[in-house]
Amino acid sequence: MGDFQSATAVTRRAGTQDFDVVLDQGWGLEDIPNGGYLLAVLGRAATELAGQAHPHVTAISGSFLQRGAPGPAVVTAEVLRAGRAATQVRARLSQDGLPRVEALVTLGRLSDEDPFWSASKPPALPPLAECPRSPVMDQRGGLRIHILEQVEQYLDPAGLGFLTGNPSGRAELAGWMRLADGSDWDPLSLVLAVDCLPPVTYDLGVYGWTPTVQLSAYLRALPAPGPIRLRAAAAELGNGHVDVTVAAWDSKDRLVAQGTQIASVRLPG
Amino acid sequence: MGDFQSATAVTRRAGTQDFDVVLDQGWGLEDIPNGGYLLAVLGRAATELAGQAHPHVTAISGSFLQRGAPGPAVVTAEVLRAGRAATQVRARLSQDGLPRVEALVTLGRLSDEDPFWSASKPPALPPLAECPRSPVMDQRGGLRIHILEQVEQYLDPAGLGFLTGNPSGRAELAGWMRLADGSDWDPLSLVLAVDCLPPVTYDLGVYGWTPTVQLSAYLRALPAPGPIRLRAAAAELGNGHVDVTVAAWDSKDRLVAQGTQIASVRLPG
Repeated sequence: MGDFQSATAVTRRAGTQDFDVVLDQGWGLEDIPNGGYLLAVLGRAATELAGQAHPHVTAISGSFLQRGAPGPAVVTAEVLRAGRAATQVRARLSQDGLPRVEALVTLGRLSDEDPFWSASKPPALPPLAECPRSPVMDQRGGLRIHILEQVEQYLDPAGLGFLTGNPSGRAELAGWMRLADGSDWDPLSLVLAVDCLPPVTYDLGVYGWTPTVQLSAYLRALPAPGPIRLRAAAAELGNGHVDVTVAAWDSKDRLVAQGTQIASVRLPG
Repeated sequence: MGDFQSATAVTRRAGTQDFDVVLDQGWGLEDIPNGGYLLAVLGRAATELAGQAHPHVTAISGSFLQRGAPGPAVVTAEVLRAGRAATQVRARLSQDGLPRVEALVTLGRLSDEDPFWSASKPPALPPLAECPRSPVMDQRGGLRIHILEQVEQYLDPAGLGFLTGNPSGRAELAGWMRLADGSDWDPLSLVLAVDCLPPVTYDLGVYGWTPTVQLSAYLRALPAPGPIRLRAAAAELGNGHVDVTVAAWDSKDRLVAQGTQIASVRLPG
């Protein structure tokens, strides 16, 4: 119970491109599975289709249609192209015959080698031990964020003014993250990681829920063991939507994942 | 000939969710249609399915499978969810029975109202008249970039050091863009715009082709008439891939579109 591998395990139906999965209540907010968790499940099914030549998800984009629910679900998938450098897959998660998430997945082979060029730098954070662990009971809305039992999150106190009614107005958050099951990060769990931070809109004093409409993640390198550091930021809240960009670095300061999403926002009043 | 509306016109097959389209050689590089152009075609088909309640593409993600070619193509589409606030569609562009691009499209209703909050600022550029128009014959590779006949591009000379062998090493480009047919930008042509700039890898002294693997665009507001300004930047080139982030602002300094893509890069040597 509570480990990422079990929570994302898929069982292929013999002779098909369909998979059975049981969505775990532990990886969501109240009874709503986290969107990154659902994408990771789709990524795992795609990984099984791609096989050993392309063992890693390198890019994934999902469209969120209907909330999922804990319990049985079905993934239907289709290999769109099996090339030399990459396998490209389309995958759909359904429950009760209704599509919940539709995803496009690219699979290839990642390494941990140094990049040819990078302008990417991890945020300057206090040590993990000096950042408070985010509690499972949401301090703003009284909701039970089960996923924070499985994903330990230690946010930079400098960005937590919203907890005391003093949001910075910058729409930025940063912090440390590690899996409570003790496992190291991998490309699939990083897909989850880029959708686990609190809404950056909290830092604007906007405390409503911000359901993801579309989310894309790029996996850039195999992460070194140890906790990751993440930074999230938004560029604009307008027309009822906010964009959120997230980057994650491993313990060797290597950029390992990037996420971007557009989410809908209900403004007060 | 040469106008965006005609080049993206789709004809629905009665009683189906399929569309015929003729891809126009004018919107690509040599005989390869531009990826943003293909996504715009898929967006137009999705717009026809969504109808008047949700007339604008607000988000689109595409997975690029095989190069397209000028000539007839078929779009097959499927409404995944028709909700109150949005319609979500899956669409595929095929030629000769082979899928070329698969896309997830969200449609809603955009406005030109001011955002609730924005940290987004257009780049400081010289006036359009002081930026050289990008020539149709590529100055690096001798290729014919037909699309630059239809999309007038005026890049900031400060970012064009790569033309004379002096790339800045920052992987940044910025400039003006307008449609040669005289039409104003709209959400669909903005999907094209975010994939029209030269590869930012030129600014790293890496001059190979960088085919898009996956691309997402978010449309944030209805653009005011007049040219747009764009800025493109990369965070990292590693593991054979580069990420490229693009933003576009209208003549009133309003953020109107954001694009992000992961592209493969073949390094010299």
